Amino acid sequence: MKILVVNGPNLNLLGTREPDTYGSKTLSELMDELVIGFPDLDISMFQSNVEGELINALQNSVESVDGVVINAGGYTHTSVAIRDAIVAIPIPVVEVHMSNIAAREEFRHVSLLSAVCLGSIAGFGANSYHLGVQAIKSYLTEVR
Amino acid sequence: MKILVVNGPNLNLLGTREPDTYGSKTLSELMDELVIGFPDLDISMFQSNVEGELINALQNSVESVDGVVINAGGYTHTSVAIRDAIVAIPIPVVEVHMSNIAAREEFRHVSLLSAVCLGSIAGFGANSYHLGVQAIKSYLTEVR
Amino acid sequence: MKILVVNGPNLNLLGTREPDTYGSKTLSELMDELVIGFPDLDISMFQSNVEGELINALQNSVESVDGVVINAGGYTHTSVAIRDAIVAIPIPVVEVHMSNIAAREEFRHVSLLSAVCLGSIAGFGANSYHLGVQAIKSYLTEVR
Amino acid sequence: MKILVVNGPNLNLLGTREPDTYGSKTLSELMDELVIGFPDLDISMFQSNVEGELINALQNSVESVDGVVINAGGYTHTSVAIRDAIVAIPIPVVEVHMSNIAAREEFRHVSLLSAVCLGSIAGFGANSYHLGVQAIKSYLTEVR
Amino acid sequence: MKILVVNGPNLNLLGTREPDTYGSKTLSELMDELVIGFPDLDISMFQSNVEGELINALQNSVESVDGVVINAGGYTHTSVAIRDAIVAIPIPVVEVHMSNIAAREEFRHVSLLSAVCLGSIAGFGANSYHLGVQAIKSYLTEVR
Amino acid sequence: MKILVVNGPNLNLLGTREPDTYGSKTLSELMDELVIGFPDLDISMFQSNVEGELINALQNSVESVDGVVINAGGYTHTSVAIRDAIVAIPIPVVEVHMSNIAAREEFRHVSLLSAVCLGSIAGFGANSYHLGVQAIKSYLTEVR
Amino acid sequence: MKILVVNGPNLNLLGTREPDTYGSKTLSELMDELVIGFPDLDISMFQSNVEGELINALQNSVESVDGVVINAGGYTHTSVAIRDAIVAIPIPVVEVHMSNIAAREEFRHVSLLSAVCLGSIAGFGANSYHLGVQAIKSYLTEVR
Amino acid sequence: MKILVVNGPNLNLLGTREPDTYGSKTLSELMDELVIGFPDLDISMFQSNVEGELINALQNSVESVDGVVINAGGYTHTSVAIRDAIVAIPIPVVEVHMSNIAAREEFRHVSLLSAVCLGSIAGFGANSYHLGVQAIKSYLTEVR
Amino acid sequence: MKILVVNGPNLNLLGTREPDTYGSKTLSELMDELVIGFPDLDISMFQSNVEGELINALQNSVESVDGVVINAGGYTHTSVAIRDAIVAIPIPVVEVHMSNIAAREEFRHVSLLSAVCLGSIAGFGANSYHLGVQAIKSYLTEVR
Amino acid sequence: MKILVVNGPNLNLLGTREPDTYGSKTLSELMDELVIGFPDLDISMFQSNVEGELINALQNSVESVDGVVINAGGYTHTSVAIRDAIVAIPIPVVEVHMSNIAAREEFRHVSLLSAVCLGSIAGFGANSYHLGVQAIKSYLTEVR
Amino acid sequence: MKILVVNGPNLNLLGTREPDTYGSKTLSELMDELVIGFPDLDISMFQSNVEGELINALQNSVESVDGVVINAGGYTHTSVAIRDAIVAIPIPVVEVHMSNIAAREEFRHVSLLSAVCLGSIAGFGANSYHLGVQAIKSYLTEVR
Amino acid sequence: MKILVVNGPNLNLLGTREPDTYGSKTLSELMDELVIGFPDLDISMFQSNVEGELINALQNSVESVDGVVINAGGYTHTSVAIRDAIVAIPIPVVEVHMSNIAAREEFRHVSLLSAVCLGSIAGFGANSYHLGVQAIKSYLTEVR
Repeated sequence: MKILVVNGPNLNLLGTREPDTYGSKTLSELMDELVIGFPDLDISMFQSNVEGELINALQNSVESVDGVVINAGGYTHTSVAIRDAIVAIPIPVVEVHMSNIAAREEFRHVSLLSAVCLGSIAGFGANSYHLGVQAIKSYLTEVR
Repeated sequence: MKILVVNGPNLNLLGTREPDTYGSKTLSELMDELVIGFPDLDISMFQSNVEGELINALQNSVESVDGVVINAGGYTHTSVAIRDAIVAIPIPVVEVHMSNIAAREEFRHVSLLSAVCLGSIAGFGANSYHLGVQAIKSYLTEVR
Repeated sequence: MKILVVNGPNLNLLGTREPDTYGSKTLSELMDELVIGFPDLDISMFQSNVEGELINALQNSVESVDGVVINAGGYTHTSVAIRDAIVAIPIPVVEVHMSNIAAREEFRHVSLLSAVCLGSIAGFGANSYHLGVQAIKSYLTEVR
Repeated sequence: MKILVVNGPNLNLLGTREPDTYGSKTLSELMDELVIGFPDLDISMFQSNVEGELINALQNSVESVDGVVINAGGYTHTSVAIRDAIVAIPIPVVEVHMSNIAAREEFRHVSLLSAVCLGSIAGFGANSYHLGVQAIKSYLTEVR
Repeated sequence: MKILVVNGPNLNLLGTREPDTYGSKTLSELMDELVIGFPDLDISMFQSNVEGELINALQNSVESVDGVVINAGGYTHTSVAIRDAIVAIPIPVVEVHMSNIAAREEFRHVSLLSAVCLGSIAGFGANSYHLGVQAIKSYLTEVR
Repeated sequence: MKILVVNGPNLNLLGTREPDTYGSKTLSELMDELVIGFPDLDISMFQSNVEGELINALQNSVESVDGVVINAGGYTHTSVAIRDAIVAIPIPVVEVHMSNIAAREEFRHVSLLSAVCLGSIAGFGANSYHLGVQAIKSYLTEVR
Repeated sequence: MKILVVNGPNLNLLGTREPDTYGSKTLSELMDELVIGFPDLDISMFQSNVEGELINALQNSVESVDGVVINAGGYTHTSVAIRDAIVAIPIPVVEVHMSNIAAREEFRHVSLLSAVCLGSIAGFGANSYHLGVQAIKSYLTEVR
Repeated sequence: MKILVVNGPNLNLLGTREPDTYGSKTLSELMDELVIGFPDLDISMFQSNVEGELINALQNSVESVDGVVINAGGYTHTSVAIRDAIVAIPIPVVEVHMSNIAAREEFRHVSLLSAVCLGSIAGFGANSYHLGVQAIKSYLTEVR
Repeated sequence: MKILVVNGPNLNLLGTREPDTYGSKTLSELMDELVIGFPDLDISMFQSNVEGELINALQNSVESVDGVVINAGGYTHTSVAIRDAIVAIPIPVVEVHMSNIAAREEFRHVSLLSAVCLGSIAGFGANSYHLGVQAIKSYLTEVR
Repeated sequence: MKILVVNGPNLNLLGTREPDTYGSKTLSELMDELVIGFPDLDISMFQSNVEGELINALQNSVESVDGVVINAGGYTHTSVAIRDAIVAIPIPVVEVHMSNIAAREEFRHVSLLSAVCLGSIAGFGANSYHLGVQAIKSYLTEVR
Repeated sequence: MKILVVNGPNLNLLGTREPDTYGSKTLSELMDELVIGFPDLDISMFQSNVEGELINALQNSVESVDGVVINAGGYTHTSVAIRDAIVAIPIPVVEVHMSNIAAREEFRHVSLLSAVCLGSIAGFGANSYHLGVQAIKSYLTEVR
Repeated sequence: MKILVVNGPNLNLLGTREPDTYGSKTLSELMDELVIGFPDLDISMFQSNVEGELINALQNSVESVDGVVINAGGYTHTSVAIRDAIVAIPIPVVEVHMSNIAAREEFRHVSLLSAVCLGSIAGFGANSYHLGVQAIKSYLTEVR
């Protein structure tokens, strides 16, 4: 079972950016922990600050993975184009956020992506990724 | 480690209510699965259709449990009083929803509870509860 | 054919509360008139000021009645939970109001319940109940 | 006791227009049923697609009928002029709709007419007319 | 100098409709007073309850009159089409209202016509017409 | 293949009304050009300033034409009744506008008709009609 | 019969300020014309750029004049305090504007004063004052 | 003179809940102070987390007390039903809040209860109750 | 302990202005009652219709008084500048209103001052001032 | 005459993405048909998922083509930057959409691009492109 | 070259008011620094808490200075009258703010003045004034 | 002291794009002038039409410069991601705009960036850049 974890803008700064809020782990360390935490999964990672490259990654994932976990960062609240890409691909996508976006500025309360994802997880720091991978793994393995 | 799972209005109908949407498991079966899934935790359950009794349960939980997982059902979108109760108690609370509330009617897109919970999980059916318990367990066991 | 008439908050004060607006009949008298007016129906009545108890009554009605007439009073405009209960039960529900809610304060112009009821009747005083029972009776007896 | 039933735009298509929604009875058949259903009343009917002719009909009704039942169709949501006509005439008017307008597009949720009518009935198909006539009959015969 | 006074829906009821608000003069009496009040002007009058006929009257006025005074009644707040007709004709139009529309229901506070008329006069009862004719007379006679 | 071109309020003034915006062709000339431009089609034309007569034309078109091109003028933004008529008839309707309504006043940015038409074309002057007829011709001739 | 004409902020610049819009007459010339135009009236004038001094003038007018014509300038759209002053004094007040405020920026479309004045006149340049004085004269002389 | 002090959800936690905000006095201590502070009054107290029980208490108060002081907590902002109960009872009600609700989250800025209470007092901590009792005492003792 | 009572626009008309609403006491009489009611306090009074002079009074109060009670009248709803003045001075300010502003026009429901005052009192007529002085006295004398 | 057809995000998936909605033709096939359909034009094509590259393409088009047809996909509703690019280039741009965006989610009802394009065409599937090219061809060839 | 620096309400408190936010320099010291910083300019200063006096100062500036720098304080967000004054005078005006108003309360995000000023500068403390004077100096000296 | 000037979409067209609005200087010339104007600073420049590359530039600037001046063009109003990048980097950022964005279309009135920048400057054409560099230079050199 192959899972792609897609990370949006500024997540490459994890570990150095506002460590009080986002913790001191780098994105790379965080992804390593995911790989260790799910030894039965084949987890790959992609990060870009460019909206269109995130769309490219989502489109390309169709042929190579079984599910996607996405933290679209600031594009979460503004990108109809990423939303369209999620709808366009026939594999399940789970939305994750490290921070509790409902407790931040009002423009972060609405996600354009949630309605077209399988589900959403927010507020648990690095653990949001673990829960997201767990969610998509459960979804893919349960009988429907 | 003791966890209370609080269920709001109409969740007592699980299994019979719109099974296509909410699955065919009853609330009781779902709670049994949680207990089995987390053998190292002491999980108890409360359900009520009465807003004030949910508040009572949250207030009373302070002395008996280490964390709360809440699916407040329809009160999620209207109850300032439950929000105040969550703020008033010093233990962590995780919000869960079985359905993807962002993909339903617009009045369900805003949760009055999210901002005062540790985090939120929505859209994974019965699995939302498992992820919620996992989230609070991780939170309580990690070093801060 | 069994019909349950559910009455929400403050309707127990009928007859004494603002008689110019709501008339001088008590709720009990009004229900007695309904029973007399529809001798071929088995009409029962429930009233509570507690939102959750109205939900309980709606849930319990499934096994005992063929249709529900509800005047949810002030909860009409705020209760997602009662709305969910109406959706959750497989029997038809008709919404009634004694006063013309469109002619009152703006926050009374929107009903959260109308969209999930069979239909709505408002503005005819005590007669709204008679029309509501007539509506559900016609619905249950017509061939579909 | 004379009652005028006023029908607005597109209601002349009843029976052929979206029969799944509006049923297979023509407007003429529906009016015939009303006459049969209320043998003690003198019921007449008017239909027009022209907003101003509906106003003419309302104005002219003053001298010839005791009450009006109106289904203003699409003008329900946009016509201040029909609203003004209802206010201008000293006879009671009841608003009816065949469909449950609260369950349709958002621009149909607000009626400009409700606040100036005696009351409103919506959602019961052809039966909405019967309930509307019953409502105005009761209103005219009760002692005030 | 020829002036056309255009009257919209329900204004044909003047004198009988809500005399406390609109006075006891009929539209015909009111127009007669205008003719008497401005002996140097050639004043004609048109009234219709049909929006499109008001548009026809405005279009036709181009060849026969020098200016228009319009009380569009309930169409004031809803008619983009009348607005377009006013823009389309090269003669000046003055908007008048008998009642103080700013002191009535909120949906009457906005006029779609004001911005494309020469100016607006509201709140002076029958005198609003006199002031409107005076305004257009002054406009047409002043040197520009 | 028969096509009806329906024109709403003030379009009878084309050629004389604001020629800088709408060009110097009359509606009649414009329709003649359409007939010449599509020699294989049977194109007829209807114009009225009365909303209800436009509805009548749409209703009557069902039996006589294969498709409709409509420029509803100012009623585009206010007429639920015309929208209902379009839904009620089983033939395809294409919406056209000569001006770029998105570049004009804000109340012109929303069309009540677009969502129930096959598609919309705006901004190309008289050419909008040609494109509209081409669109409906292509739609009717393509295999579905 | 004594009339006070109250002028708000920036109206002291009339004649020099944007003459294309406001004309080339000074406020003083404009007031002189009013006096000449109404030889049977005793017309006085007050101007201030200070909101509170306009309130003072309104309050003081009670004992000395029979009616007020006010052009509150920019305070028209923001001053609850001037509105309260108009309500507090028992003499009639007419609102005038030289420009057509409905055709200017959106924040000028709403007047806080209109609803508490006798009526409003806007768009006729210096003539708005003449019409305003005429309106209040007619009001004071008509039998009520 | 008998006064009932009604306390809504979460106020039973006073003294332990966020003492920096709400002070360290328990609700019981606070009520004792009220009794001591007003030796000439007969003050009783009611608290519940259940919206409907607060309505019950308000309804029952009619026969036993002369006035009510209510702190409806989180229901202040959401309960049309409590508002209706206040309107339904013929005794005066004063609204109090310990915190300055205007300085908190935006959804706390609007109270559904204020408009139907005698008056409102907010922001003075425990002293808000004293001022509330003083207000109702003054109201009941002054000659009207 | 010195207290300044600041009164905004139109409050100088108390006693003569709408006595049904505001009572028949003049502002002077009302202030005299305050002095008598609080013999242990040194109470002074200021009134102006000019927004800036109210700001001056607030600024000057810093050196001469221990607390301020303000009824800003119509400026309550529009003055960011008075709000800034309250924030700028280091002494406590209590907001009072004689009428129940929540029960009046919608533009009076929001106070720009409440959030930066110690607390607010509204609806008790002249007694609102007494309660306001009592509130600030209690605040200044309690141990913090 | 050279025309550039610019395609935005996810349009590279045409043919495989939701074929029920978007048809089974690939973008390449669709562009080939355009070339065949307009043998007298020199049509080139550009597609990118990256917003900035679409801007680059628009900027570069100035020197090489006479007109642009753009389907900006999801960026239609969010991109001020693409709008600015259209304004910045001196060649005409026509907006096209395959689906009827007015009939989809509400956030798709507003296009930031329409107001600065020559005109817009939506709802005709692949045919929207043909109509768009026809529109710009007509525009470029007509005498102005 | 003569420049007037206009300061609005509460800016006379600079140095003592919230020094952490506004710095410890008094307005007088700040103006002295401006004079020293621009030895080639003739800089004068005006401050008032009264809105109308700020308007007076702007009007009077026409004859005596070449440009104006204004910090309108709290009137920035509420004064249509000051906006009108800026439009009425033919000399350039630059808007400055010491604090970053976009980072403060939402009602401070909109300035009524920006659109009619040459430009705006906010967020640089006392330095905002220096930049403002520099901006107007550059504007006045550049060739146009 | 090193300063990076970041330019967003379409600014590469300066000099050729709407020269009446943006002047005839190219971006390159404008940047050269900045270098000449601040000989004591080390000023570099970056421009891209791609949102993500602007984020990259901001992230990379941390190690190489002391401050940033950004003109984000059309992304100013839509990019949460650029906002997040500004927050994520520990160096000061100043926002500049050549045009007066408050005087343009309404969607340009709100900047998502202002609240997280040191301050903002808009409306002074090319001079906005000079003022921006001056602002950041002053900020970096002043003692804090």
